[in-house]
Amino acid sequence: MTDPKQHVVKPYLITRRLNPENQETPIHFIQDDTIQTTLFYRRNHFSYPKLTYSNYFIPINGLVSTPILLSIQNIFQLPAKTLEVVLECSGNKRSLFEPKVFGEQWEKGAMSQGVWKGVPLRTLLEITGIKEEAKEVVIEGYDVGKRTDSDKEISYSRSLPLEKALHPDTIIAYEYNNQPLSFKHGFPFRLIVPSWYGMASVKWIKQISVIGSHFTGPFQDIDYIYYPNMDNDDGAFPVTAINVNSTIQKPLDMASLNTGKHELRGIAWTGKGHITKVEISMDNGNTWSEAKVTHLNSVYKWVPWTFEWNAAEKDAYTIMSKATDSYGQTQPLNPFWNRKGYGYNAVDRIKVKVE
Amino acid sequence: MTDPKQHVVKPYLITRRLNPENQETPIHFIQDDTIQTTLFYRRNHFSYPKLTYSNYFIPINGLVSTPILLSIQNIFQLPAKTLEVVLECSGNKRSLFEPKVFGEQWEKGAMSQGVWKGVPLRTLLEITGIKEEAKEVVIEGYDVGKRTDSDKEISYSRSLPLEKALHPDTIIAYEYNNQPLSFKHGFPFRLIVPSWYGMASVKWIKQISVIGSHFTGPFQDIDYIYYPNMDNDDGAFPVTAINVNSTIQKPLDMASLNTGKHELRGIAWTGKGHITKVEISMDNGNTWSEAKVTHLNSVYKWVPWTFEWNAAEKDAYTIMSKATDSYGQTQPLNPFWNRKGYGYNAVDRIKVKVE
Repeated sequence: MTDPKQHVVKPYLITRRLNPENQETPIHFIQDDTIQTTLFYRRNHFSYPKLTYSNYFIPINGLVSTPILLSIQNIFQLPAKTLEVVLECSGNKRSLFEPKVFGEQWEKGAMSQGVWKGVPLRTLLEITGIKEEAKEVVIEGYDVGKRTDSDKEISYSRSLPLEKALHPDTIIAYEYNNQPLSFKHGFPFRLIVPSWYGMASVKWIKQISVIGSHFTGPFQDIDYIYYPNMDNDDGAFPVTAINVNSTIQKPLDMASLNTGKHELRGIAWTGKGHITKVEISMDNGNTWSEAKVTHLNSVYKWVPWTFEWNAAEKDAYTIMSKATDSYGQTQPLNPFWNRKGYGYNAVDRIKVKVE
Repeated sequence: MTDPKQHVVKPYLITRRLNPENQETPIHFIQDDTIQTTLFYRRNHFSYPKLTYSNYFIPINGLVSTPILLSIQNIFQLPAKTLEVVLECSGNKRSLFEPKVFGEQWEKGAMSQGVWKGVPLRTLLEITGIKEEAKEVVIEGYDVGKRTDSDKEISYSRSLPLEKALHPDTIIAYEYNNQPLSFKHGFPFRLIVPSWYGMASVKWIKQISVIGSHFTGPFQDIDYIYYPNMDNDDGAFPVTAINVNSTIQKPLDMASLNTGKHELRGIAWTGKGHITKVEISMDNGNTWSEAKVTHLNSVYKWVPWTFEWNAAEKDAYTIMSKATDSYGQTQPLNPFWNRKGYGYNAVDRIKVKVE
């Protein structure tokens, strides 16, 4: 009469919204380098598309020498590469901005990572050829719907500058963690743009178009723009690469601990180069000590870190973590506030009580 | 090749801690009057107990005329009653206190409700008889462990004053929503103390003892006490009945909406009497309009409410909800801050943007 399964304790996705589905990864409870599909964060602008695969082809058109239609089979037959890549929503940690900003109130788990297999977008564009006037490549997804700011039905589309589209690690992925890509994450094909925030990694690819001007879809020119001011659009610039960042996974914020030794644990990541160090402060940023970081030279993925702390005195403590990358970027003490709440990467902070 | 299941979108428990397991109900996404077991909030002080049911008996002892041992079968044979009862953790909404307090950072979902079937504790105490010196009834659970403030292993135990122990609706429950109580919620027997915060509803009942003094276990005399001051224990008093309260379920906090009509939706509940009205304010509490409340006369359970709002003007709005009960209690504009963060019941507040 004792069923061991009834004692199983596991974390779940954290629901932010159901329609469209927006759920974040329980990031504090993740200890693996790759996140299982069921715990991979889900970020959707619209409800899930209804796809029929019997007649599924991806057209590549626009400013190309030879427009083509690629079948699922065509793409599977091309040389593929496998990359371990973190995807992070640019709204990750949005709920931490002060003053608060509208939008999904992501805490620290609008990010996940795992192993993606797919064909470089470059390979496809080499097949079609690109005309000289080409400036950007627009990737359109099958997900469609209405935005709150318009009555028109539109699809989720994003462009990449030619240089990023032709980067050999920008891939059309069809496997995740050695399994077929799951439907909710873009089956049969999604873009993976390593080192950029997740908005670039369009799911359920419908069409790839090479254009000679700047793409002006609303997910390119209204959303995913840093607006530094509350009341005007001065100084606006687009969201692209992931900012250097870190998250303390353990202990939990506002936890009560015993006196004695505690292992602090977390992750650090960046969209430029690789992490070179992670530092911990217990005195509001006056002094910093280096954490132990593993896989220091990894690119595209987060690196785990640990720090041994001897909590000798009963007191309340603020613990801060600060990552630095190989481009010399480091997390600021205060976030860069922007009206739509993108790219939060201030030093991570938690409070604990030792009793 | 289209599997309808892959489109299914559902909420999950929201993980606050895994060891011990503390997960809250995704309360904003609940539309039913009763919450399915898998989404019922889980609040544990210790890891799950290892029970063997082959030799399971509940002793009733202490200041009773005839101490007895009750088998599972004995209890099943006694007359049972069925009650629809909300359980709310006294730490529900703790994360909203300013200044912040230590402890589980519950948002608004450390509460659930459903239909409980069980035998009144009174019935058991009528079998044993109670001596005249009896003051309190201590219910001990099988869950044991160490607290951060002590090295001793202790069990989770709570007492009830005699009057509450003998209330005909204080039951030893063994069914939830017409199913056997699940292991994680106290199988085979848990206490259900309607109208009190959840700390009183001890799970996995091990022993029931009638005592002639005030019980001084740490979950009675250290935790579950309102300490109004940061630095001393002056004015401390125990957590008992649920405060009158309400939660706005829809729209979500910090959501963007279209102009036009929107239905606001939520729940209201109280531990004293029943809800008499729920009011909504769109102007920071200057004016209030009554929401439409169903099941107004229900006791022990939350009541759903709705309010039709015509969002004519593009602007940012603060929406507030305020419940009042039949004892004339009403939600305060500001919470009663207390050091351990219990009983938060300030007017519920969200912000939305109409664009």
